[in-house]
Amino acid sequence: MPRGSPAARESGPAASEERARAFAEVRRATEALAAPLSAEDQQVQSMPDASPVKWHLAHTTWFFENFVLLPNEPGFAPFDPSFGYLFNSYYEAVGPRHPRPLRGLLTRPSLGEVMEWRADVDRRVNALIDGGGLPDVAAGVLELGLNHEQQHQELVLTDAKHLLSQNPLRPAYRPGAAQASGRGAPPLRWLDGPGGLVEVGHDGAGFAFDNEGPRHRVWLEPFQLASRLVTCGEYLAFMQDGGYRRSDLWLYAGWAAIREHGWDAPLYWERRDGAWSLFTLGGSRSLDPAEPVCHVSYFEADAYARWAGARLPTEDEWEVVAAPAAADGTTADDERFHPAVAGPAELAQCAGDAWQWTRSAYAPYPGYAPAAGALGEYNGKFMCGQMVLRGASCATPRGHARPTYRNFFHPPDRWQFSGIRLARDAA
Amino acid sequence: MPRGSPAARESGPAASEERARAFAEVRRATEALAAPLSAEDQQVQSMPDASPVKWHLAHTTWFFENFVLLPNEPGFAPFDPSFGYLFNSYYEAVGPRHPRPLRGLLTRPSLGEVMEWRADVDRRVNALIDGGGLPDVAAGVLELGLNHEQQHQELVLTDAKHLLSQNPLRPAYRPGAAQASGRGAPPLRWLDGPGGLVEVGHDGAGFAFDNEGPRHRVWLEPFQLASRLVTCGEYLAFMQDGGYRRSDLWLYAGWAAIREHGWDAPLYWERRDGAWSLFTLGGSRSLDPAEPVCHVSYFEADAYARWAGARLPTEDEWEVVAAPAAADGTTADDERFHPAVAGPAELAQCAGDAWQWTRSAYAPYPGYAPAAGALGEYNGKFMCGQMVLRGASCATPRGHARPTYRNFFHPPDRWQFSGIRLARDAA
Amino acid sequence: MPRGSPAARESGPAASEERARAFAEVRRATEALAAPLSAEDQQVQSMPDASPVKWHLAHTTWFFENFVLLPNEPGFAPFDPSFGYLFNSYYEAVGPRHPRPLRGLLTRPSLGEVMEWRADVDRRVNALIDGGGLPDVAAGVLELGLNHEQQHQELVLTDAKHLLSQNPLRPAYRPGAAQASGRGAPPLRWLDGPGGLVEVGHDGAGFAFDNEGPRHRVWLEPFQLASRLVTCGEYLAFMQDGGYRRSDLWLYAGWAAIREHGWDAPLYWERRDGAWSLFTLGGSRSLDPAEPVCHVSYFEADAYARWAGARLPTEDEWEVVAAPAAADGTTADDERFHPAVAGPAELAQCAGDAWQWTRSAYAPYPGYAPAAGALGEYNGKFMCGQMVLRGASCATPRGHARPTYRNFFHPPDRWQFSGIRLARDAA
Amino acid sequence: MPRGSPAARESGPAASEERARAFAEVRRATEALAAPLSAEDQQVQSMPDASPVKWHLAHTTWFFENFVLLPNEPGFAPFDPSFGYLFNSYYEAVGPRHPRPLRGLLTRPSLGEVMEWRADVDRRVNALIDGGGLPDVAAGVLELGLNHEQQHQELVLTDAKHLLSQNPLRPAYRPGAAQASGRGAPPLRWLDGPGGLVEVGHDGAGFAFDNEGPRHRVWLEPFQLASRLVTCGEYLAFMQDGGYRRSDLWLYAGWAAIREHGWDAPLYWERRDGAWSLFTLGGSRSLDPAEPVCHVSYFEADAYARWAGARLPTEDEWEVVAAPAAADGTTADDERFHPAVAGPAELAQCAGDAWQWTRSAYAPYPGYAPAAGALGEYNGKFMCGQMVLRGASCATPRGHARPTYRNFFHPPDRWQFSGIRLARDAA
Repeated sequence: MPRGSPAARESGPAASEERARAFAEVRRATEALAAPLSAEDQQVQSMPDASPVKWHLAHTTWFFENFVLLPNEPGFAPFDPSFGYLFNSYYEAVGPRHPRPLRGLLTRPSLGEVMEWRADVDRRVNALIDGGGLPDVAAGVLELGLNHEQQHQELVLTDAKHLLSQNPLRPAYRPGAAQASGRGAPPLRWLDGPGGLVEVGHDGAGFAFDNEGPRHRVWLEPFQLASRLVTCGEYLAFMQDGGYRRSDLWLYAGWAAIREHGWDAPLYWERRDGAWSLFTLGGSRSLDPAEPVCHVSYFEADAYARWAGARLPTEDEWEVVAAPAAADGTTADDERFHPAVAGPAELAQCAGDAWQWTRSAYAPYPGYAPAAGALGEYNGKFMCGQMVLRGASCATPRGHARPTYRNFFHPPDRWQFSGIRLARDAA
Repeated sequence: MPRGSPAARESGPAASEERARAFAEVRRATEALAAPLSAEDQQVQSMPDASPVKWHLAHTTWFFENFVLLPNEPGFAPFDPSFGYLFNSYYEAVGPRHPRPLRGLLTRPSLGEVMEWRADVDRRVNALIDGGGLPDVAAGVLELGLNHEQQHQELVLTDAKHLLSQNPLRPAYRPGAAQASGRGAPPLRWLDGPGGLVEVGHDGAGFAFDNEGPRHRVWLEPFQLASRLVTCGEYLAFMQDGGYRRSDLWLYAGWAAIREHGWDAPLYWERRDGAWSLFTLGGSRSLDPAEPVCHVSYFEADAYARWAGARLPTEDEWEVVAAPAAADGTTADDERFHPAVAGPAELAQCAGDAWQWTRSAYAPYPGYAPAAGALGEYNGKFMCGQMVLRGASCATPRGHARPTYRNFFHPPDRWQFSGIRLARDAA
Repeated sequence: MPRGSPAARESGPAASEERARAFAEVRRATEALAAPLSAEDQQVQSMPDASPVKWHLAHTTWFFENFVLLPNEPGFAPFDPSFGYLFNSYYEAVGPRHPRPLRGLLTRPSLGEVMEWRADVDRRVNALIDGGGLPDVAAGVLELGLNHEQQHQELVLTDAKHLLSQNPLRPAYRPGAAQASGRGAPPLRWLDGPGGLVEVGHDGAGFAFDNEGPRHRVWLEPFQLASRLVTCGEYLAFMQDGGYRRSDLWLYAGWAAIREHGWDAPLYWERRDGAWSLFTLGGSRSLDPAEPVCHVSYFEADAYARWAGARLPTEDEWEVVAAPAAADGTTADDERFHPAVAGPAELAQCAGDAWQWTRSAYAPYPGYAPAAGALGEYNGKFMCGQMVLRGASCATPRGHARPTYRNFFHPPDRWQFSGIRLARDAA
Repeated sequence: MPRGSPAARESGPAASEERARAFAEVRRATEALAAPLSAEDQQVQSMPDASPVKWHLAHTTWFFENFVLLPNEPGFAPFDPSFGYLFNSYYEAVGPRHPRPLRGLLTRPSLGEVMEWRADVDRRVNALIDGGGLPDVAAGVLELGLNHEQQHQELVLTDAKHLLSQNPLRPAYRPGAAQASGRGAPPLRWLDGPGGLVEVGHDGAGFAFDNEGPRHRVWLEPFQLASRLVTCGEYLAFMQDGGYRRSDLWLYAGWAAIREHGWDAPLYWERRDGAWSLFTLGGSRSLDPAEPVCHVSYFEADAYARWAGARLPTEDEWEVVAAPAAADGTTADDERFHPAVAGPAELAQCAGDAWQWTRSAYAPYPGYAPAAGALGEYNGKFMCGQMVLRGASCATPRGHARPTYRNFFHPPDRWQFSGIRLARDAA
């Protein structure tokens, strides 16, 4: 359930125009991200955690058809009645759905048919908006649908990266992207975090997902937060110090995971002729030690922090430092599609480059209650077994994230642009 | 290793012309079979046993490039040096290869690039043939390559059928194909099989795979072979008699398999509103009780035979009856793409419609020795754990099979057009 | 790492006597719990999560040999040098060890040999204590060893229960135990929980495990806590209302778990002739609706709470209500070996009967740092992926638990005596 | 279904006495083999393929109770009605049974109770025999039961060996057994096998299992059979020649198996300090190069034969050479419990030391029909997916096997005493 922005509750022609503009922009952006990929590329599911890009194009369309058109369009009929079953992701209340691990088997409808569906739904949503008959609640759902589609834009990039990485040809998604800069990283500074009673969570002004609220009080002990993300060079020092071979650095489940999977480096690192190479959305190239390390699991982030004599921040600690800071970092709009070396910002990379694992398990805030109905399944039912990540990444659309934004993944997940920001107790 | 036909050892312009004609025809036939499928359809691997159609198009091309061009073309260079790794199937002697279950992840090279590769190899093989410089042994390998490609033509159909069946839309490969005929099946007659000392196996005249020889003597007790395949209606009677619930009818491993997989009917049978429906390459339609049952495992064929008071034939029994009989049955050239009701032939369906499980484990004939080198891996190394099937199917190219032809699959395999012909001891 | 009690730091004859008494009592208690089980019963590991009872007898002995005798006994030599490998549980710093899932294969040493080892270690530890030469730190480790052994006493009961439950004969561990009382449960009352800034965690007086501290401040919103555990009758109403069939009641991972495992009732519930029967340590008998439900996973506890219009407490909420309350509840010393119907206590069952799932993920308290060395592995490395349970159970030795005690298990675990206490936000 | 010996059909006091003697001897022998093992040793199932020794003691007793007493004893009542469920192995016609992989969880009934059951059944069977009222068919079943129990005697040894091998202490079953002799192996000679029309299979005189008949004609091409088994030294040469690293030596399924399991030597071979050590029923000791290699899978036997320029014999070839030869080889009655170096016999080791893999898949002979009823499940339903082994082993009771005896295991099975005898085509 979204926490609608005030804008979403406005009405009148200006509001409609703004909605139509935002809708067009987000929908177009998704298609632009898919454009470098062939129909074959967009068809394949490279692992159960990932989805085919065609599926993302279809599922985001289903979201608008099912949650915006169906309850609001007079005489509604679906573009194709079978698509609800095929492209519902996990909404039990909406009905049964195609099993997640089998999404890649759906060679029909074709990409062309999915694009026709997109056009049809775009036209009909626009008609609803232009007609001005979109009720308040539907405007809120429309806004949720746009934020939802932005989340899938990020997944288009991370899922395509995973697929291309499985190909021995190591093809580039966007040749020329993700180049090394030659710049060095600034020294890591420790920013003081306030102790005492603080407030965290979204205050209701502007859009936020339901899991970001209610805003509430939390007591913090004094702490410090690192001014930038851990770099590849720093992580390499951990590896060279036997990081992946020293059980004392790892959580029990982490030690089990690295042995089970045979991990001895972040995902997409490859040793070639004695040097480390990196697979990026621009293809394979040498490791740049100044760039932030990413594609690490929670276990690796935690072990690195222990090795470094520090720890991961809690999500509350992260938020109270980041909330007042200036947004900084590479986003998808920069079309670099890879984390960049930290710049001079006081709190660098807090709004881009790579998501930052926190030591906080993903759980409901005090007083949290999901909405009734299907949209209540958006966030709440995942609040077990996952860890919170904060910030944003080089694959996140600009403006999508916020200081209160709570991303979440399972501890062993590595295919997102997930990195490390350190914290420590105040002396 | 092929057992080359005499034609393969001929030389001169007529032989070259014939070779060129055969080569063109087989290569074109593969592409025609792939044509109804989109690039997306041809991309996906629906299970580890199956391969993407694009992969079949590429692998058959690799076979000619690697085994015909490489050793015979002056100044040979591969079309793309990386394709050898990607499209080698199981030839250890040629080098490492992409893991079989991951074939569907190869979205690059694209279908278009594979088709360019096909054209390049076709042109170069033709140049070799036309130049008349193809040595004897290479002519034999060329003939093997054509028979190899025909085997993959059958897999194009069975693998595509499996993929399309996984789609809840149940799309047709060829709308209009596989229609029910309304004809009834002729009564089953028992043909007498000779006892005594007989000869089986290929005698070396014309092409055969190496596993079909040497021709050798075998002693048989008198037996009888059914004049046609078991029909869907007959199989339905077995099911209605509790066939899948009576442990006494099953081999131990078969009983375990049907419980593990939850099988209670052949593959592609679906119960809809109380009636049985069938998924075919022409889409879903009602079951025709007069058609041969197919897509059954060895276990189901064996259990049915036990229920019917009969047994499966040995491959030798099958061969001595089929060898002198007239070839009969639906093949891929009929473009029906589904088994048809038996006709009036004395030994119906012995050269088409559905492969016929025998009770013979796939093993080397006395005196069998695979060739040295990579082509020795063609057949011999699979001689453990599989059962022999005889005949041919509605997906087999006409003229591909022979009475001595030995097809082989694992006992639980069901995605081939595999059916049942009964045998029994003479009274 | 233990947080030693002041007593552990005392010295002199009185302290030695007290230590010797406590040591003897705990060691004897373990053997008394094992006594009803035959050597065969004590040999078997019924699942990877459980251990053989013989292994518990040996591992607790290894703990004293390795952590108390080895560093303190002059001229120390192990009873058997191979036992360190066999009976180390998870201490990476001590060295490699026998794989956990294979513990049940160790038919040698025999139970008799393990009992000889116990006697030898008992004798030698007593000699150390009596000699008065036990340094402070060793006295702390001794106390830790006793608390460690008490934890394994609980596992002896839960692991034996699991083993016996796998036997179709449903044998009793202690015939006559776990009888139904015929009493009714008192009505559930809601106790007010204080909001505001509170302190939680162990304050260092008396023994505690390291994960219980440091004591620290937490801000709580006002809430209410149930006066007793959820009963079997109440849980049955949830089941009869379709609890296991309504996806809206479950976390995503919980819904997946109940479908994967086919759960439709708590562990050890069996439907016989239309009525619910329970397997207990006293054998099988009818369900008593007034008793606390137990052997539920976190997922089931969470779903039940949602169905009941309530939620699970956080561990902080639980602690601030329980800390000042009178300890109440059935423990192992009562030899009932099953949760009993709640009595009249203001906060019933807060120190016995069944562990109580909280909604708190098991994580380090602010400022927590595990000790250096092997004993630092005791608790800290498990702080990921598990949920905190509070209270104690009918299998916990009396006096072992505390209001600050943090038990932890994985969300799907059910073989512990784990039950449900509800909480809700203050109106 | 047994093929009863003529003796089984005799009657009169002498026949009764002989039956009573045989019954007592076989039953006593089983208990003698179990005697060196503690109740704990006899309790554990070390893998799904193996069974606890206590289970073997119970299951063989169930066989007599169910198949001899139940149909013949007036007023029959089972010793314990629950034991039928617990100790039926795989007879679907008798009723449901405890799942095979969970046999090790049955700590009740205790070993003592099982021994009481044995005594009770022994007493009652003896009463039947002595009373002279055992009808012909029951005498045949009694004889089958004795041969059945002898098969389980062999499994007591092989299953106990597997269990003890899993223990890092490597305990001996019988200290002093399985010692190396210091003798050398005689040179391998090639014995000529007759070509032409031969007869194989049991002729009905004396006891045989149903799968050994009917006797029937087979045509063989001329061949040669090795005079003795392959030795450890010869196998070591294969290993040192890269046997486990050369894909060209292996069947496809064998190559997959050795990579999946990480096999690089026979089961129970351990490399210690650069030399090969062997785990035997007498404990661990150095490899003796003159002894027969055993505990190899079919895949290893087949690969070795290919490396050696030979092949495995068919079961028919094996039988026509072995049938007229003098029985030779170490059996369980020798209490060596390990294969011994070949002696001077013309066809050494054909009736002991190690079972010999043949290249014949286990299949029914022409005209084979299992009996009606439960005993028809004895052999027939396993005739798929397994390979025939001939001969006997050092764990087979003397007199149990015959030249027509067909043992059968799955290609990857290694825990039996399975070795290699080579064959080759006649020049």
